[in-house]
Amino acid sequence: MADSVDTGRPAPRTSTHSLVVEAIENRILSGELGVGDMLPPERQLAEQLGVSRAAAREAIRVLESHGVLESHVGSGARAGTFITSMPTAALSRFLKLHVSLNNFDLDEVVQTRLILEVESAAMAARRQDPEILQRMGEELAAMDDTDLDREDFGDADTRFHVALARGGGNRLFADMTQAIRESLRAPLLDGYRAHEDWSGLRETLQHQHRELLAAVAAGDAERASQLAAEHIHTSYQVLPADSGGSRRQGNRTAAGGV
Amino acid sequence: MADSVDTGRPAPRTSTHSLVVEAIENRILSGELGVGDMLPPERQLAEQLGVSRAAAREAIRVLESHGVLESHVGSGARAGTFITSMPTAALSRFLKLHVSLNNFDLDEVVQTRLILEVESAAMAARRQDPEILQRMGEELAAMDDTDLDREDFGDADTRFHVALARGGGNRLFADMTQAIRESLRAPLLDGYRAHEDWSGLRETLQHQHRELLAAVAAGDAERASQLAAEHIHTSYQVLPADSGGSRRQGNRTAAGGV
Repeated sequence: MADSVDTGRPAPRTSTHSLVVEAIENRILSGELGVGDMLPPERQLAEQLGVSRAAAREAIRVLESHGVLESHVGSGARAGTFITSMPTAALSRFLKLHVSLNNFDLDEVVQTRLILEVESAAMAARRQDPEILQRMGEELAAMDDTDLDREDFGDADTRFHVALARGGGNRLFADMTQAIRESLRAPLLDGYRAHEDWSGLRETLQHQHRELLAAVAAGDAERASQLAAEHIHTSYQVLPADSGGSRRQGNRTAAGGV
Repeated sequence: MADSVDTGRPAPRTSTHSLVVEAIENRILSGELGVGDMLPPERQLAEQLGVSRAAAREAIRVLESHGVLESHVGSGARAGTFITSMPTAALSRFLKLHVSLNNFDLDEVVQTRLILEVESAAMAARRQDPEILQRMGEELAAMDDTDLDREDFGDADTRFHVALARGGGNRLFADMTQAIRESLRAPLLDGYRAHEDWSGLRETLQHQHRELLAAVAAGDAERASQLAAEHIHTSYQVLPADSGGSRRQGNRTAAGGV
């Protein structure tokens, strides 16, 4: 296994718990196991696969971390380990970690957000979902409260944009948008804090939010896309240049003009 | 914890191994731990955090599965558990599982591929990286071998498109493209197998590949984008309508015209 240091490739998954993970993954990939199905108890799972209980438990932990298993303690019909469906939280943790490890530069992540959200804005304008428009309006109103600190403003801002992404109807876009926002939470907040004119920046952002919501509500897909792009550019101009941390070694290029 | 069934929210992470995962994640997020750094041995880690060795090991398994830790067995300087950088494999497994669990429809995933790759094609044309062009040419030549079966053709096809995505210079685009291709491997292969005129389809795909490579090599960003979009539309028309499996309940809508 030491060779994997040189090749940069993942080490072969040969440890016992990996075999259990693979066995369960294969049953999911084949459709044999689906959301809501229960796994056998740990002891029985271990016996079935001829592995130790520790290996079975390690495998369950891994699949929990990928958002595909959820364990409920206690007794009764709801106790046990179930196939579940929590991709957003798992994807957010994944992206946050890999941005921190400099596997992705901030610019790469922001550029991904840009193309996803520009498309989402157009799609949301075509769909004009009343629930989404209401949700966006509520977050907009919350952000108008000038007593809100930067952190709460940022969180309401995230909810506004995740609602917009959901309004486009593509759940992978929406989950990616949420994961990207969460992975950029700390650097964005640093940027807000370092900005010399917070109330001016905030007014600009809110003006853009209002225009964007109006374009979506009016069903103007082209304008919604254009406003989303302008807004994301404004928003990320506040990012400190070294916000990737001192470990960051990648080139901070203006990738694709972002 | 049983309440989390009702809310659909992730269960609070209160088990012992989760505390270890969080402690390590926080040290990564703060920049205290970076790629190449070694974790203390399992026993010492457990002592430091006041948890059992089993909990420490479970936490390490979880972080391995996210592609942020890699363990090397044996003795010597290269043995131990290191902070590593393998986002692609972890992201592919994540997407494959969640596509299988119907958390994302095929259409949502294909639409994500479409917008990423249309942008990548334009970016690759602007960069005209000679190594990338050579790699794409090699895969193209490999796919010209008519003895290649559908599976090997599909894998060379994936490498061609991942090279194109890397040529755009955004590693998150490239990793997402690879993850999406891998998560769609089985349904695409089913589609190739079910197609009544495989050699005709294959010729069409290769014609499109050649034109796409020529546009990238010529630095024609607009044409490269347009060709990428047409090619992805052609490619996914072969997907069987029920390729999400019998468990699939989502609407198979023509999301965004894909």
